[in-house]
Amino acid sequence: MDVPAAVDPVPADAAAGPAAARAPRARRGPYRRLPVEQRREQLIAVALELFSRHPPEEVSLDDVALAAGASRPLVYRYFPGGKQQLYEAALRTAADELSSRFTAPVDGGPAERLGHVLDQYFGFVDEHAAGYGALLRGGSVAETERTSAIVDEVRRAAHRSILEQLLVKDPGPRLLLLVRSWIAVVETAALTWLDDARRDSPGEASPAGEAGVGSAAELRDWLVDEFVAMFAVSALHDPQSQRVLRSMLTGAGAETGARLVARLGSLLTGAAAGPPA
Amino acid sequence: MDVPAAVDPVPADAAAGPAAARAPRARRGPYRRLPVEQRREQLIAVALELFSRHPPEEVSLDDVALAAGASRPLVYRYFPGGKQQLYEAALRTAADELSSRFTAPVDGGPAERLGHVLDQYFGFVDEHAAGYGALLRGGSVAETERTSAIVDEVRRAAHRSILEQLLVKDPGPRLLLLVRSWIAVVETAALTWLDDARRDSPGEASPAGEAGVGSAAELRDWLVDEFVAMFAVSALHDPQSQRVLRSMLTGAGAETGARLVARLGSLLTGAAAGPPA
Repeated sequence: MDVPAAVDPVPADAAAGPAAARAPRARRGPYRRLPVEQRREQLIAVALELFSRHPPEEVSLDDVALAAGASRPLVYRYFPGGKQQLYEAALRTAADELSSRFTAPVDGGPAERLGHVLDQYFGFVDEHAAGYGALLRGGSVAETERTSAIVDEVRRAAHRSILEQLLVKDPGPRLLLLVRSWIAVVETAALTWLDDARRDSPGEASPAGEAGVGSAAELRDWLVDEFVAMFAVSALHDPQSQRVLRSMLTGAGAETGARLVARLGSLLTGAAAGPPA
Repeated sequence: MDVPAAVDPVPADAAAGPAAARAPRARRGPYRRLPVEQRREQLIAVALELFSRHPPEEVSLDDVALAAGASRPLVYRYFPGGKQQLYEAALRTAADELSSRFTAPVDGGPAERLGHVLDQYFGFVDEHAAGYGALLRGGSVAETERTSAIVDEVRRAAHRSILEQLLVKDPGPRLLLLVRSWIAVVETAALTWLDDARRDSPGEASPAGEAGVGSAAELRDWLVDEFVAMFAVSALHDPQSQRVLRSMLTGAGAETGARLVARLGSLLTGAAAGPPA
């Protein structure tokens, strides 16, 4: 968090209304005065930090107030909907951050570009471990149609970004299904990775460990290979996917495709031709 | 539904207590008397039918009572937790039914066995279209930690069944991740298939259509191929997966593996060696 300690001539608490101005400042600690917009951003940043390390049901509004050096009435002044509203605002901020990572331009072939997006994604998952896990696992008390809509929005951003990285303009239903499917695989891998980390270090959600399914870098390599193989299968079932795959595997992508073919081919034909186990 | 009209000597309503016995029978229609356990099963069957065709938020307790030919107080007598309890009981029944389909023994190679499980699964998805979609999409008002636990339980049953079909005894973390990932792909395909059907016939969730991503049979073939390809990629990254794949691709599975290798190989190497698009 990068919250400036600058004090506005009109204290944010007073500007926010009489109730906030009457907050028992001396008893609760040294509250800092911040301009309205800064205070709002600071509360969201503090909430995001707490929701990143704890599932939503374990974070109270008092925790946020304490960590922000603010009073409980002040937090309610900014977020009249209480914890749920603060949770959704924090989720919105996290979603925007993740979406912006997806859209950053990357050089290299399709595999390098996908690998880069995955690195960004696993970095984000690691930073927001507990909150991300609770969100994707579902069934959380903080889950609503609105939070599901935000999660879907991030998926759509990932979706768009992948199609852009692959230079696909008008994806048909099968190609869309392939990309959606791969995103589901990425989320499954991320959740499994988080579970491993949680098991390795009880009471500590981060850092994600090396045991179990492997490191983030190993999962990234596996996921890129899975993408190419899944795409190749779709190409067997769908003419558009076949055209896109062919153009993907020319130029910068030729090496990726040829390498995977050689590795898969020797494995599968070797196994198929080999002696029974 | 197959609800016998047999009448127990002690009417179920009276046996259930005075409040139910006082229900305004004449005004509400011809209620049928059923023994307690039969009545409970009937209410669950009626609820399941309604939740299958409508998302949970569109089904009221009165709808269930009306469809069951029962009074609202009677329904509350059996399900004091109201609609949410009835929803969870219906979900439990559906989950048990789906899990039992997974465990049915099947002949043939791994591809045939997986294909058969997928046929069962898509049949179930089609029968429970609206409810299934609402459940897997998340964010429903009826979603709780308990409903999420039931869904997870079904996933674990699918998981176990797939490992049994593949004759894997002690799956390591990478093999488990592979199976979880493929189940996520299957769910993604099923949801997309349901979305297609909903778009094709507004106001009618069933039957699932042929447009968009294709028929259930086409998706089944695609999913089986995806499984083999995803497994092959995992085998490149994990020794246990490689051993299991090798034994899978001998005997009854040899043809499946060899056929997919030939198809993928010609596609990928042809594309990699071909002229730029």
